[in-house]
Amino acid sequence: MSNFEIHPQLRADCHRLGRLELCHVLLHKNASLPWFILVPETTITDLLDLAEAQRTAALNEAAVIGQLIKRDLGYAKINVAAIGNVVPQLHLHIVGRKVDDPCWPAPVWGNLVESREYSRQRIVEMRALLVRYFSLNAKAL
Amino acid sequence: MSNFEIHPQLRADCHRLGRLELCHVLLHKNASLPWFILVPETTITDLLDLAEAQRTAALNEAAVIGQLIKRDLGYAKINVAAIGNVVPQLHLHIVGRKVDDPCWPAPVWGNLVESREYSRQRIVEMRALLVRYFSLNAKAL
Repeated sequence: MSNFEIHPQLRADCHRLGRLELCHVLLHKNASLPWFILVPETTITDLLDLAEAQRTAALNEAAVIGQLIKRDLGYAKINVAAIGNVVPQLHLHIVGRKVDDPCWPAPVWGNLVESREYSRQRIVEMRALLVRYFSLNAKAL
Repeated sequence: MSNFEIHPQLRADCHRLGRLELCHVLLHKNASLPWFILVPETTITDLLDLAEAQRTAALNEAAVIGQLIKRDLGYAKINVAAIGNVVPQLHLHIVGRKVDDPCWPAPVWGNLVESREYSRQRIVEMRALLVRYFSLNAKAL
């Protein structure tokens, strides 16, 4: 989809990290925990309405992000969700959680009050991590 | 896993509807919106840590539940999430949502204050729906 555009609300809430085979990778601007958002290039709005192959591809990309969060960012637990009640464009939340994070054990949506910003340097590092994980993964396949 | 047991908290919160090929199907006792929970028989706790084939199987079963919610229960939107911060056993929420439901547009977790109970008859009907959807689906495969 050459004219695909990420929803303005997601663009406002997130930094853009890059583009994978299926999904755009966003990083929520709130740095108080690692909160990635994958946006597959599709007009379908519900995860469960995607064709199986595309849903599997989206979940596989999410799984690599999950590994990145666990191994490199030190979060033991991953919350995954496709909600989309406010922003209808299909997007998949992948959120690193641990027992001492700012809203444990509540889900982040509507409960993450603490807010911190990423430095420009940290965003560059996150982008580099993403490149490393997906390159390694591509070699392994 | 012959000795697999559904977590006591899930058993307390839900009605058991049945068993699919991979997952046990639970129905949250709060009848104020259709809230299904799938529990795959695995000791892995994070959805993204499942092997691809098993994750795909779980999502396929979830997708059929999603169709049931949309077509037979009249909810236009499906929220899907694997959270598990409180109950560590892997479980997948599949929740029907619509603009006039009791906590739209907030996610249900921690926000669904209204509480209603299913009648015994309604649970029987839900079980029958499940049988119908998965039989139809099995024929189509």
